[in-house]
Amino acid sequence: MITVLTGGTGGAKFVDGLRQIVPPEELTIIVNTGDDLLWWGLYVSPDLDSITYMLAGKLSQERGWGVKGDTFFCLNAMGQMGQPTWFHAGDRDLATHIFRSKLLADGKTLSEATSEIASKLGVKVRVLPMSNSRVETRVLTPAGDLSFEEYFVQRWYQDPVVSVRFAGASDAEPAPGAIEAIRSADIVLLAPSNPVTSIAPILAVPGIREALRESRARTVAVSPIVGGAAVTGPAGILMAAQKFAVSIAGVADFYHDFLDLLVVDSQDATAAEELRSTGMQVHCAPTVMHKNEDRIALAKSVLDAAMQPPPAPAAVERA
Amino acid sequence: MITVLTGGTGGAKFVDGLRQIVPPEELTIIVNTGDDLLWWGLYVSPDLDSITYMLAGKLSQERGWGVKGDTFFCLNAMGQMGQPTWFHAGDRDLATHIFRSKLLADGKTLSEATSEIASKLGVKVRVLPMSNSRVETRVLTPAGDLSFEEYFVQRWYQDPVVSVRFAGASDAEPAPGAIEAIRSADIVLLAPSNPVTSIAPILAVPGIREALRESRARTVAVSPIVGGAAVTGPAGILMAAQKFAVSIAGVADFYHDFLDLLVVDSQDATAAEELRSTGMQVHCAPTVMHKNEDRIALAKSVLDAAMQPPPAPAAVERA
Repeated sequence: MITVLTGGTGGAKFVDGLRQIVPPEELTIIVNTGDDLLWWGLYVSPDLDSITYMLAGKLSQERGWGVKGDTFFCLNAMGQMGQPTWFHAGDRDLATHIFRSKLLADGKTLSEATSEIASKLGVKVRVLPMSNSRVETRVLTPAGDLSFEEYFVQRWYQDPVVSVRFAGASDAEPAPGAIEAIRSADIVLLAPSNPVTSIAPILAVPGIREALRESRARTVAVSPIVGGAAVTGPAGILMAAQKFAVSIAGVADFYHDFLDLLVVDSQDATAAEELRSTGMQVHCAPTVMHKNEDRIALAKSVLDAAMQPPPAPAAVERA
Repeated sequence: MITVLTGGTGGAKFVDGLRQIVPPEELTIIVNTGDDLLWWGLYVSPDLDSITYMLAGKLSQERGWGVKGDTFFCLNAMGQMGQPTWFHAGDRDLATHIFRSKLLADGKTLSEATSEIASKLGVKVRVLPMSNSRVETRVLTPAGDLSFEEYFVQRWYQDPVVSVRFAGASDAEPAPGAIEAIRSADIVLLAPSNPVTSIAPILAVPGIREALRESRARTVAVSPIVGGAAVTGPAGILMAAQKFAVSIAGVADFYHDFLDLLVVDSQDATAAEELRSTGMQVHCAPTVMHKNEDRIALAKSVLDAAMQPPPAPAAVERA
């Protein structure tokens, strides 16, 4: 059994590789919901949508978000009525937002809505939100206290970042099944997602970090930092803002209390050697996913490395 | 000042003629909201939408509802998720439903939402819902107690009709401005809409019928019954179900307590003569609107007739 913690576009690509080599009944995906927003009054969950569309074969590969081949006629009409249009909800994508909003208004939890949408789209992999409570990633900048989507989509992550917090996290509970999925997994994978705004919100939900520390699973993270910079997006900026090194060592540090193995890109072989000298297990593989074959190859390489027996304690002590 | 009571597609065509010959600041439209429904959890007001789109030059002339040139990609995606698709909300049309739902969720009244949408679409004519309370036209049939849209759109008005009622009407209040618009108008027009399901819901709102009876305005109805049958839709079926004759006499009877003048189609000249003999003032004009010129001509003819001085009492007594 494999449980994946994920969010964002890097995470969706990684999950796409996994789903092609792992039977669906062996996969559980726990998804960041810190980016969720009310858009035109509809409940939108960007990371749940990306993962669900990916698993349903509907994700736009060019954009990395939304439904492939989608149109934006409703969005244009909203713009004509003077409503905001910076979050690009497509016409087909809107069906998901409207359906989810209706399920929530009918009293369903986000877990239940997620599972119903996934099932209607033919997704067999289990997809869980990190929590059914509202946890909001807030990015403090000189321009104000922004929601993640305001910071990332509306303002193109141009603002200097003072700090990041997860509003509501301390009162949140993990979604039903999330803790068990971590505790009972053979392998827990952290996708090459932004540690600060895709993985940290999940870790901020009380109980999740403890479950990772206590799980019998091998816990393996794939570094989203390659050659000292984020593959895409603001992961580097945000790690620096949170006082982490923008390096594979910074990623290892971010997950220090529960990580068994860090998978880093082959171009970080030298840094990997240094990191091994601190006692961290590190596996090198091509992690940048341009083509579908790259996604499958990375998934295979990560699972192979995860299934290797850990080095004998003596070897670690020698390091 | 002219106030129009309207609903449905016949009403929208009639209003289209009026708006082309009357300055916008002289027109108030009071619209049936008995057909309003929650569709996918969104608040949809079919008659408010048709009138607003018509006044904004956006109404699909071919369909008589929805936005011209609209697409249905969200609807298709909803269908793929197993959701109902019988109410055809187009992608551009959805913008209105989403925006209105958001305004209502934010605590605005239906009047305020209507006025905000109209203003964003550049409509200068005043458009009022009949009420800010929920009044639901329910059609009792052997197949069950249906909402109007279920009866009309979903089931194509194929069910025999036992009765029609306006749930919630007795507790409803007229929308702000509606009573004044009737009382202070020079002319009140009843559009050639279905009397039972487009006009009667408005009349069922406490205070409206009284205002019509007491108004100093000339009150003029255009008959939607031509040659003993409805021009379109189920007006005939529904009038019969409500024990009204399916004739211009039935229409006159429907509005008997406040009507000053009935405009009927030229082909009903003989029936008009009979009706005049009962004391009703009747004006004959071509009322079937195929082309835009027909709409303008009908509006002109109705206003001309409305502005004629009423016949001297002696003439009525002689009849």
